[in-house]
Amino acid sequence: MAVRALVFDVFGTLVDWRSGVADSFRASGVSGDPYELADAWRARYGPILAEVNAGARPWGNLDELHRATLDDLLAERGVELAGQQRHALVGAWHRLDPWPDVRPGLGALSRRRVVATLSNAHVALLVDLARHGDLHFDCVLSAELAQAYKPAPQAYLTAARLLDVEAGELMLVAAHPSDLDGARGAGLMTAFVDRPLEYGPGSAAREDPAADESVADLLELAERLGA
Amino acid sequence: MAVRALVFDVFGTLVDWRSGVADSFRASGVSGDPYELADAWRARYGPILAEVNAGARPWGNLDELHRATLDDLLAERGVELAGQQRHALVGAWHRLDPWPDVRPGLGALSRRRVVATLSNAHVALLVDLARHGDLHFDCVLSAELAQAYKPAPQAYLTAARLLDVEAGELMLVAAHPSDLDGARGAGLMTAFVDRPLEYGPGSAAREDPAADESVADLLELAERLGA
Repeated sequence: MAVRALVFDVFGTLVDWRSGVADSFRASGVSGDPYELADAWRARYGPILAEVNAGARPWGNLDELHRATLDDLLAERGVELAGQQRHALVGAWHRLDPWPDVRPGLGALSRRRVVATLSNAHVALLVDLARHGDLHFDCVLSAELAQAYKPAPQAYLTAARLLDVEAGELMLVAAHPSDLDGARGAGLMTAFVDRPLEYGPGSAAREDPAADESVADLLELAERLGA
Repeated sequence: MAVRALVFDVFGTLVDWRSGVADSFRASGVSGDPYELADAWRARYGPILAEVNAGARPWGNLDELHRATLDDLLAERGVELAGQQRHALVGAWHRLDPWPDVRPGLGALSRRRVVATLSNAHVALLVDLARHGDLHFDCVLSAELAQAYKPAPQAYLTAARLLDVEAGELMLVAAHPSDLDGARGAGLMTAFVDRPLEYGPGSAAREDPAADESVADLLELAERLGA
C-alpha cells in the first residue's frame, strides 16, 4: 500500500529537547549538571503519560504534566524554586530548536505527501514549536485530539481518521522504537530516524529492525520514499 | 484584550467555492446553468448542518453531507448522474482556488499572530484546500474536532481551547454575519471580510455592524491589526 501521509513524532525526532531544556535549567539557577537535570525530568515523562492512559490520573496537557513532573523532581532533590521559574522551565518545551535536517526534510517530504505532527504534546505547544523552528506542516495532530497518549492505538488511529487515510497508508516517523511499535500495532507503516544526539554524545545506539524504513535523517527518508 | 490568534472561515471567506463548483458541474455534463446549480447545492448546506447540530442526523463529514445534498438536488430535478461523476462533484470542494489576497494576507497576519482555519469542513478536506492553494496555516482546526458545526458555540470554544487562548483573545474572520454572530455569542472577537463575489457579480451586499473590524480583504485586516 502506498504511503499517502506522514506523521512525525516531535520531541527527540524533530526537535532537540535536551539542549533547550538544559539551557533553561542553566538560566534557572538550579544547581547541578543541566543535562543531567534535563534527562531526569524527561525520565518522568513516559511514566506520567502511562498513568493518564491507565486512567489513574485525569487528562492533562503537557504543560500540566511537565509542571507536575518538575515539581516532583525538585521536591525529591530538595530544590527550592519560585513558581515563575518553574513556569519558565515548563515554557522551554515550547521553544526547542529543530535538528538541522528537519526544515529542508519536511519541505522535500511535503511535495508529494501530506505531512503532519503526531505528538503527545498538545496542539498549542506544537503550534509554538512549529513557529519557533519555522517548520511547515499541513496539519498539527496531537494525542490531545484522541485524548489518549501514544503508544495507545487510538492516538494513531485518530490521526488516520482525521487525515482520511487508511492506517496502512499512514507512516509514523520517529526516533523511538516504543512509539514505532505502537504505530505498527495500530496498522501504520513506520520509519525509524536515528537521532544519536537525543540523549547527548555517547548515549546508547538505537535501532528498530521492524521498521519499514530506517534512515539517518529526513532528507534520506525523502530519497527513500521518492519524494 | 489583545488578539493573540486568528481563525478563518474557509468556504466563501478564503476560497471561491462558487467558481470551482460551477466548473465541476460544467465538466459533469449536467444540463443547466452551472452557477445556478452551484448556488442550489450550496443552499442545502446550512440546513443539513443544522440537522446534525439538532441531533436529527448523525455526525457526517462534509464529503458525506455534500453527497447527501447533491443526491437530493439531482433527485428533485430528475437528473441522472453516475456515481463516479457525483464523486467528482463532491471532490471539487477539495480543490477550490483562494481569493487573490488570501495567500499574501495570511503571510502578513501570521507574522505576529497564530493563524488557523475554523471551518465546518473536515480536517482532511481543509488539508487538501490548503495544499491546493499553497496556503500556510499554523494549525488546521475544524468543527470536526468539536463534533459540532458552526454556529454552535462549542465549535468556537474548542478552537480557543486547542490554541490555549481565551475566547476573547481569539478573532474569527468570516464573510458571513451568521458565523460572526455565533463567534460573538461564544465570546470571540470578530472581523467581517467583504466577499462581494461569493455569490457572483451583482449579488446582495453584506455587512456586519457588530464586527470589531470590517475590511475589504486580508491585507487590510493585517494593516488594521498592526500585523
